[in-house]
Amino acid sequence: MFEIPDWTFEFHGHRCPFMPLGYRMATVALQKLGVGRSKNHEMHIFSEMGIGHPQGCLQDGMQCATSATFGKNMIDKLFYGKVAATFFYPGKGAVRLVLKADFADKMAPHEFFKLRKQGVEPADVPAEVANDIINVVLAANDEELFDVRMLSDFTYQPVKGSFDKARCEECGEYVFERYLRYKNGKVVCLPCSEYAKDMHAVPA
Amino acid sequence: MFEIPDWTFEFHGHRCPFMPLGYRMATVALQKLGVGRSKNHEMHIFSEMGIGHPQGCLQDGMQCATSATFGKNMIDKLFYGKVAATFFYPGKGAVRLVLKADFADKMAPHEFFKLRKQGVEPADVPAEVANDIINVVLAANDEELFDVRMLSDFTYQPVKGSFDKARCEECGEYVFERYLRYKNGKVVCLPCSEYAKDMHAVPA
Repeated sequence: MFEIPDWTFEFHGHRCPFMPLGYRMATVALQKLGVGRSKNHEMHIFSEMGIGHPQGCLQDGMQCATSATFGKNMIDKLFYGKVAATFFYPGKGAVRLVLKADFADKMAPHEFFKLRKQGVEPADVPAEVANDIINVVLAANDEELFDVRMLSDFTYQPVKGSFDKARCEECGEYVFERYLRYKNGKVVCLPCSEYAKDMHAVPA
Repeated sequence: MFEIPDWTFEFHGHRCPFMPLGYRMATVALQKLGVGRSKNHEMHIFSEMGIGHPQGCLQDGMQCATSATFGKNMIDKLFYGKVAATFFYPGKGAVRLVLKADFADKMAPHEFFKLRKQGVEPADVPAEVANDIINVVLAANDEELFDVRMLSDFTYQPVKGSFDKARCEECGEYVFERYLRYKNGKVVCLPCSEYAKDMHAVPA
């Protein structure tokens, strides 16, 4: 039986099968690439998931297993709607893993998903139901779970960072240089420039 | 002295001052909104950070303190380059917090940042240097750290999700419906359609 640390469930907020599945997917990726946890900024994960569908929870398992985190800018969504990801480690290569359709089909009839489709949120699923489907994930072997393919010509160059920042001449808040803009003769932040309105539908 | 759980450092991968700072920022947000950890999909965090600058590590602290995670699609970057975030909780309201420029200036001369600007990665900074700047963050009071503003008219409606999926007629992999496309008379995934090439500069 595969084991994952208790703190990963605390991080994630609830007990569901997909966080552990992502933890396992990332663990296979680390093994295939012959690397450990990314303490700094080594690995980059290209998750093929998107928005508006379940199973994104895998990405929390990937973060937990690798420390290739959202905060460190080491995991991105590709918005393909697939339960798959490419793990790239400079100098070691890249590997793509996808959840096997057969395993997805095997899980699908479980009570956990019946409840989820009825609108029951994960933390409100009875503990014995959640633990049972988690155990299905933890008891499977790697070959049942994932198709694995090494990508020989994959490469990726993260953006070059800078520590330089300046205060917005309107609101006075600090802004990293890349995001400063120019409007009415002043160097300002995106919200003060109002250019931010072109970027997002989100009210500020 | 503020305390944060040890597992958050394991998740993050290294000991730096910004993960704890994000944990503290999110903790103030939870208190202002009068809510606890988001076990399901309650809160949404709009981080004003972007790419190509330091201090993104705050976002890992936010994830750890709230369980409003990347995997659960509950935290997004706004790409403003500011050390700030808006925390929105339906029925409770929204609050924006920004790191005070005075506190950023107080931290800036520390040996930790001298080393970082010389290219030393966080996990390679001597432990006593890292722990010293972390203690500066943990010893400060909330008022030293953050400007806090309740946003009375902020609202946000997450995208409506669907469990429906189908296999790509080319590669056979499962795809959530939102991301299926149509090409040459077939229902296919974004990479097989080659429309994905229009979306990303990333090689597939």
